[in-house]
Amino acid sequence: MSPPETEFITLYHSSSDDSESTSLGTSLTPQRIGFVGFGTIASAIATGLATQQSVPISYLAVSRRSEKRSSALQKSFPDLVSIHDDNQQVVDTADIIFLCVLPEQTSSVLQKLKFDAHRHTLVSLVSTSTIEDLCRDAQLPPERVFKMICLPAVARCNGICLLLTPTQKDPPILTELCEALGGCVQARDAQQMSALMVTTCLMGSFYGVLRNNREFLVRHGLDRDQASFLVGRLYDSMVQDAVQVQKDPNGFDQLIAEQTPGGLNDQGLRNLEALGALDAYDQVQTAILSRILGESDGSLPFESR
Amino acid sequence: MSPPETEFITLYHSSSDDSESTSLGTSLTPQRIGFVGFGTIASAIATGLATQQSVPISYLAVSRRSEKRSSALQKSFPDLVSIHDDNQQVVDTADIIFLCVLPEQTSSVLQKLKFDAHRHTLVSLVSTSTIEDLCRDAQLPPERVFKMICLPAVARCNGICLLLTPTQKDPPILTELCEALGGCVQARDAQQMSALMVTTCLMGSFYGVLRNNREFLVRHGLDRDQASFLVGRLYDSMVQDAVQVQKDPNGFDQLIAEQTPGGLNDQGLRNLEALGALDAYDQVQTAILSRILGESDGSLPFESR
Repeated sequence: MSPPETEFITLYHSSSDDSESTSLGTSLTPQRIGFVGFGTIASAIATGLATQQSVPISYLAVSRRSEKRSSALQKSFPDLVSIHDDNQQVVDTADIIFLCVLPEQTSSVLQKLKFDAHRHTLVSLVSTSTIEDLCRDAQLPPERVFKMICLPAVARCNGICLLLTPTQKDPPILTELCEALGGCVQARDAQQMSALMVTTCLMGSFYGVLRNNREFLVRHGLDRDQASFLVGRLYDSMVQDAVQVQKDPNGFDQLIAEQTPGGLNDQGLRNLEALGALDAYDQVQTAILSRILGESDGSLPFESR
Repeated sequence: MSPPETEFITLYHSSSDDSESTSLGTSLTPQRIGFVGFGTIASAIATGLATQQSVPISYLAVSRRSEKRSSALQKSFPDLVSIHDDNQQVVDTADIIFLCVLPEQTSSVLQKLKFDAHRHTLVSLVSTSTIEDLCRDAQLPPERVFKMICLPAVARCNGICLLLTPTQKDPPILTELCEALGGCVQARDAQQMSALMVTTCLMGSFYGVLRNNREFLVRHGLDRDQASFLVGRLYDSMVQDAVQVQKDPNGFDQLIAEQTPGGLNDQGLRNLEALGALDAYDQVQTAILSRILGESDGSLPFESR
């Protein structure tokens, strides 16, 4: 399929920070989006973008590789998806380009591509890339280049996108695309971005706590399937209360304050603190950050920061 | 309002364990439900029952006290709710009776009431009550008496009900009412019930971890509201993955196994374990159980069980 016209796009990216005109524009302008490299996370983003209903998408250009993933996406969304063997075709036919290649390929892939600084927005999903290197290799100005990290759940529009936006807060279209994928948190510099990445690496720890809570019940005579069901349902119920206050900077504190003073819940938290479990979380997060920053291999011991 | 006929009900409770006939019966038989005592948790259960769509409810009889809560319920569901000054009226006009009084009132309240062993089901929400005491005080046979514990989220049909069912698994109607309120986990004896209660007392601990994770981001330069939003969204996303496998006895283990070996998530969990945080959870849960069983005041230290 041939890509639709692009004239409205440029108008968009040159618009002011006026959020009213931005959202108006979004409702009018179908987006043309390309993927250079098409691995797991690219496939999740593309699936989410094709599925979401908030931002109109007219065209999704994807690299053939990985062939299995690109074919599956085209099969699911035949009117939207176009597969290209040549990365330059992806770039030429789209306006927002998601870069999803391996860290060691990033520089050489970008250096071979020709971008239009008036038209293209480059979004790198390569965790090790820096905005400076991306600008240099793609020959794009900093206001056209972003870094993004997201969870696989973006495929169900229930992920969360971390967006490094050093030059502008709420970049038009991109913020709205991230919101449509499940939510957007913006970092203003690389240090903030690294800290945000730490939070997204707490999956193993969380599932470990769920397993621990389940096994306590099993040790006390419950069937493992019943125990698993209760733990899952309980955390689901608790998280829904947390989600209701997540936009309040002190929301979690309020949920803690709602526990009866001296009651079982309150005492449980105080015991957990006294036993050093929350200090352990601090050390775990500090170790992850250190590894992300390349300062260590993440092994203990660590002083909390 | 006058209560509807009750003839189908008895038929129900004398039916066999055949789940097909049970669900068929449920779809035909509107339930008449009463509340003796009407505090926070009674109000939550009544609100959930009036809201849910799975089991037809024809009538909700509630104690006037607490007046504010009973009036609010009647205002919300005027066609369903009848307020009574006399607890015996509640019992006389309903078939399933939720007992929601203070622990020290339980015996004297029950001893004053007259139940019909062929018609009534008694469900005690009093955490300290035993099935034996309830049977003696209400003059009801054990197969008519249950204990239940539930979270306030039952009001939104998103709670979880713990049901002590020593004499029969899946008691008809009651199981379905609990399912309609968000989910049902059954204990076969008082010890299992106590262990299940422990899990529902992990709210303080969980919100403490959320606060900890948020504060890590704040220390690294994120705004507290952004940090809160990310933590809330992340746990929501993780819990949804957990909920998808919660009926699998090894589902949480699979989620852990999905983390890249040696990756940031995997290392985070191993660090958390090495720092004793999961042992701390064991001790916290053991302390809560000890307090529930009246063996201690729940203070540390505790050997994990």
